[in-house]
Amino acid sequence: MPYTIDFEPVGRRGPCPEGGTLLDAARALGVDLASVCGGYGTCSSCKVQIVAGLVTLPTLREHGELSLAELAQGYRLACLVEPLSDCRVHVPPESLTALQRTQVEGLEVPAEAQPSVANRVVQIAPPTLDDLRGDDERLCEALAADGVAAAMPDLEVAAQASTELRRLGWQARVTLRGSEVTHVAPVDAPWLGLAVDIGTTKIAAYIIDLASGKTLEARGVMNPQIAYGEDVIARLVCAGKGPDEAARLQTLLTDGLSQLATEACAAIGAQPTDIVDAVVVGNTAIHHLFLRLPVQQLAVAPYVPAVRAAVDVKAREIGLRLAPGAWVHLLPNIAGYVGADHVAMLLASGMAGRTDSTLAIDIGTNTEMCLAHGGRMTSLSCASGPAFEGAHIKFGMRAAPGAIERVRIVDGRVEYKTIGDEPAVGICGSGLLDVVAHLRRAGKLDAKGRLAGPDVREAEGDAEFVIADETVAGSRGAITVTQHDIREMQLAKGAIRCGIETLLQDAGITASDLQEIVIAGAFGTYIDIESAMTIGLLPKLPLDRVSQVGNAAGTGARLALISRTHRRQAQELAQRVRYLELARSPRFMRNFAEAMYF
Amino acid sequence: MPYTIDFEPVGRRGPCPEGGTLLDAARALGVDLASVCGGYGTCSSCKVQIVAGLVTLPTLREHGELSLAELAQGYRLACLVEPLSDCRVHVPPESLTALQRTQVEGLEVPAEAQPSVANRVVQIAPPTLDDLRGDDERLCEALAADGVAAAMPDLEVAAQASTELRRLGWQARVTLRGSEVTHVAPVDAPWLGLAVDIGTTKIAAYIIDLASGKTLEARGVMNPQIAYGEDVIARLVCAGKGPDEAARLQTLLTDGLSQLATEACAAIGAQPTDIVDAVVVGNTAIHHLFLRLPVQQLAVAPYVPAVRAAVDVKAREIGLRLAPGAWVHLLPNIAGYVGADHVAMLLASGMAGRTDSTLAIDIGTNTEMCLAHGGRMTSLSCASGPAFEGAHIKFGMRAAPGAIERVRIVDGRVEYKTIGDEPAVGICGSGLLDVVAHLRRAGKLDAKGRLAGPDVREAEGDAEFVIADETVAGSRGAITVTQHDIREMQLAKGAIRCGIETLLQDAGITASDLQEIVIAGAFGTYIDIESAMTIGLLPKLPLDRVSQVGNAAGTGARLALISRTHRRQAQELAQRVRYLELARSPRFMRNFAEAMYF
Repeated sequence: MPYTIDFEPVGRRGPCPEGGTLLDAARALGVDLASVCGGYGTCSSCKVQIVAGLVTLPTLREHGELSLAELAQGYRLACLVEPLSDCRVHVPPESLTALQRTQVEGLEVPAEAQPSVANRVVQIAPPTLDDLRGDDERLCEALAADGVAAAMPDLEVAAQASTELRRLGWQARVTLRGSEVTHVAPVDAPWLGLAVDIGTTKIAAYIIDLASGKTLEARGVMNPQIAYGEDVIARLVCAGKGPDEAARLQTLLTDGLSQLATEACAAIGAQPTDIVDAVVVGNTAIHHLFLRLPVQQLAVAPYVPAVRAAVDVKAREIGLRLAPGAWVHLLPNIAGYVGADHVAMLLASGMAGRTDSTLAIDIGTNTEMCLAHGGRMTSLSCASGPAFEGAHIKFGMRAAPGAIERVRIVDGRVEYKTIGDEPAVGICGSGLLDVVAHLRRAGKLDAKGRLAGPDVREAEGDAEFVIADETVAGSRGAITVTQHDIREMQLAKGAIRCGIETLLQDAGITASDLQEIVIAGAFGTYIDIESAMTIGLLPKLPLDRVSQVGNAAGTGARLALISRTHRRQAQELAQRVRYLELARSPRFMRNFAEAMYF
Repeated sequence: MPYTIDFEPVGRRGPCPEGGTLLDAARALGVDLASVCGGYGTCSSCKVQIVAGLVTLPTLREHGELSLAELAQGYRLACLVEPLSDCRVHVPPESLTALQRTQVEGLEVPAEAQPSVANRVVQIAPPTLDDLRGDDERLCEALAADGVAAAMPDLEVAAQASTELRRLGWQARVTLRGSEVTHVAPVDAPWLGLAVDIGTTKIAAYIIDLASGKTLEARGVMNPQIAYGEDVIARLVCAGKGPDEAARLQTLLTDGLSQLATEACAAIGAQPTDIVDAVVVGNTAIHHLFLRLPVQQLAVAPYVPAVRAAVDVKAREIGLRLAPGAWVHLLPNIAGYVGADHVAMLLASGMAGRTDSTLAIDIGTNTEMCLAHGGRMTSLSCASGPAFEGAHIKFGMRAAPGAIERVRIVDGRVEYKTIGDEPAVGICGSGLLDVVAHLRRAGKLDAKGRLAGPDVREAEGDAEFVIADETVAGSRGAITVTQHDIREMQLAKGAIRCGIETLLQDAGITASDLQEIVIAGAFGTYIDIESAMTIGLLPKLPLDRVSQVGNAAGTGARLALISRTHRRQAQELAQRVRYLELARSPRFMRNFAEAMYF
């Protein structure tokens, strides 16, 4: 008999798989328990509190990661604990991946509605004893009479057409993709498209009216693959284990996306089967996991994609539940770590047409950037790590309610603001950036990144600076930023700045030559640009040369959905972009070392 | 707790579904119990003997269908019996659908191997840090260097190619269908095609070496859909109930065919994944069930197909497990009751090129025939019923071991031969035909079909003629042919002869103008032509004008697999054939009445 685990405050209750850990139980029950390392006990993101019941004794690893006070209170790492009886387990907010702020806003680029699908209303002659043509011919010949050379639809559509045409009295709206009939629907049904940006942590989906090009609904959810690791490497390792694991990771995405589409459609009184075309973007790893392409070669040098070209695939073939004949278009990838989302971002920010020197950058666990200069575009990718997502940071968390997202040190006093104005439970990336910048300005942090000064206290063998003290933060103790946290931030910002400098050197220009820096993505939207310049994440430039454009990848996906011209431009863009392998740059080590200074 | 049912001598044992009948239990356990009517209690083909255990009392229907002696011995109709305890059930041989003679032999038509797929051996440059192209581009560019303009393979093939190319050290044999890469395999792997004729009762499959066009292996099995009704109407009704039922009927076929392909490949040391192209033919109903197309409209006037044109579909999309990128081609249908198997038969018998008047005919539950005369081809279909398959015949059975297949009456004495020379258990179609012909010749049957004479005895209110008496046939009693059986045969042969006469009248010729009659199909192969002429199934002609060609539909499928030219000819054939709706012929009733005479 498996033990029953009760996860609170989520309220999910169910059996722990035979011989499984609490993390396994959480995954099986759909509890969105964070797991940055993918369940290998090498991060501490799956911290939970055992409230009742017997479990295995703490491991050495947990003794290292958790304080004695925490262990005494029952805090454990879910991936290392096996239940020995029924248990009640408390999941603290910072260990939940759900409820986070997702990013759906992005700049609107006006584009003429010129989608990749067309439609016609047809009136078809019903069969009689004198007209025994098949339904397939009946449909194609009616379209031919309307001047449309239609080819045989695929089987699913042919099956649906037979049934629908009879139900609709042989009058219908037919959707065509080139010469292929992809959908048969009532004349007055909504005619919708779906644009999606699948990020490593978040998914943004847009429902578009294909006739007008207007966005009717925008929705965000967490990427459900997070349960298998917050960074893509953990997921690639998981998918590489075998076809079942790869299928599970794909299904998580496609089911999540189908669900999201259903909810978004319901909000506007439509059905997901009204969606007749879709565009999906994501980084190369997500792209491959979504399409269930082999990923092993993405995890080892030279990191080549199985498929780099743009892909068109029937939605149903990858398990997406849209109109039965709907196709999904995936923009092309550029390299193993510069994917279709980067192409979409470049498309949305109009990089191809730029004549001035522009740097476009999307900050994340992996940061991609592109420099347009002198009619050339060069992109690279750097492993900036998950520090901005709150991982490997003592009180780090992602941008969920209760996360400290803004910090100022005014006259030595710390002021902060949390997301949702909830009681502080941790610090998210933009908050950390502010802390480091203000510590630096206040002289409590030197250029090498060492914390010093009367406000700096010692705890558990590490120097730390208090953001919210015990009186505010409650039982969990004070919320602090440690010397270790600052080193993590230093590595992250160093990696990104190193990328920027490498691109500038490659083009033979300096930062002051940049006419514009375009910052895309969720993290980039919420950061304080002055803080980013203070710590050297970005080069110092007049603030009006920096624009924060929100989810540009999502905007690019929408453009490729609405407009054939933009879809073609995305192809050309991907061909034109030169990929620079950062690690092969001769000045890489020197750039990186220099970029570490605050 | 469901009751456990033990089916003997098959040796299958398992639970009966809640509230289910013994037929349901047999289906759930994969026992090939016959069920002509599809489980509606209107035929008696699912007769079983309850050996141990309690069951529901005999229904009125069973009292009508079974003798008191049979009921006393525990004989029941499985579709009307629910178990009331664990049971042991004996399935008599004549109630089993398996073990029957299947027909794979057919005339060989020499055709130059010119398949619809091509192959190339390529040597591909592996990725390096200086060559970061995706695997997709790497493959397409290697083919381009070889002068082949290859397009992006589909996702499954791209995924397989990535893995295979690495495993094979970047040297492989690539299969192309037009510009599409459909398979990547070791250079020395077999390069195979699969041709299939799916009949209502039997499936014949052929494994072809695509390079030479040679048939390497031929195999037959029973159509596993038989468990859902022996005639197609019962299956159409079942599939029309809902998507789950339609899916189940499709899966039965595709799983059965995958299994058959696997066994056939194993016999020649190959894998089903070596099969890179396939051609499938069947009647329109089977075609639609196989592709899971809507079938409701096939069951009501005017009986139009959902799809009449030739279909190309990825094998994996319909659940066939061949090479991941393999396509399946289905020849076109002509009408609701003249399907792709008829087209294949016409292709194999070279009807398109005939200048003399030729009648081609495939006798079955539904009999299709085509008259080529004066450069025109006209086809029709007639519902000849299942009498030739042994259904609705007192001792009727299909061509399984123990079936009487040849009968002669010599000097008033009956001589017979059974299939496999086993003890006689019943009579199959060719045996029945002989009985009727010899009774007619011996003067024991008049032209109107009435049995009379000293050898004719009375039993259970019907006249009957003894073929094998109790001393030979054992506990089951004598094997006889009844007046009722003869009426069933009369209807069947009348329907077919009526079709022949209608075609001749339509062309303005008489039977003596026919230069050839081509008889295709399993039943037609085993009948005695003289008997067929004696009873008037076929018009009287010199015997050398009649040829029995075996499974011509299977041969046609092979031709369309081996040769692009033949595949194209099949399309043209289907376009050229004029379909004649028998029931609309003004002389139909008169022809039918006349055709009933012996």
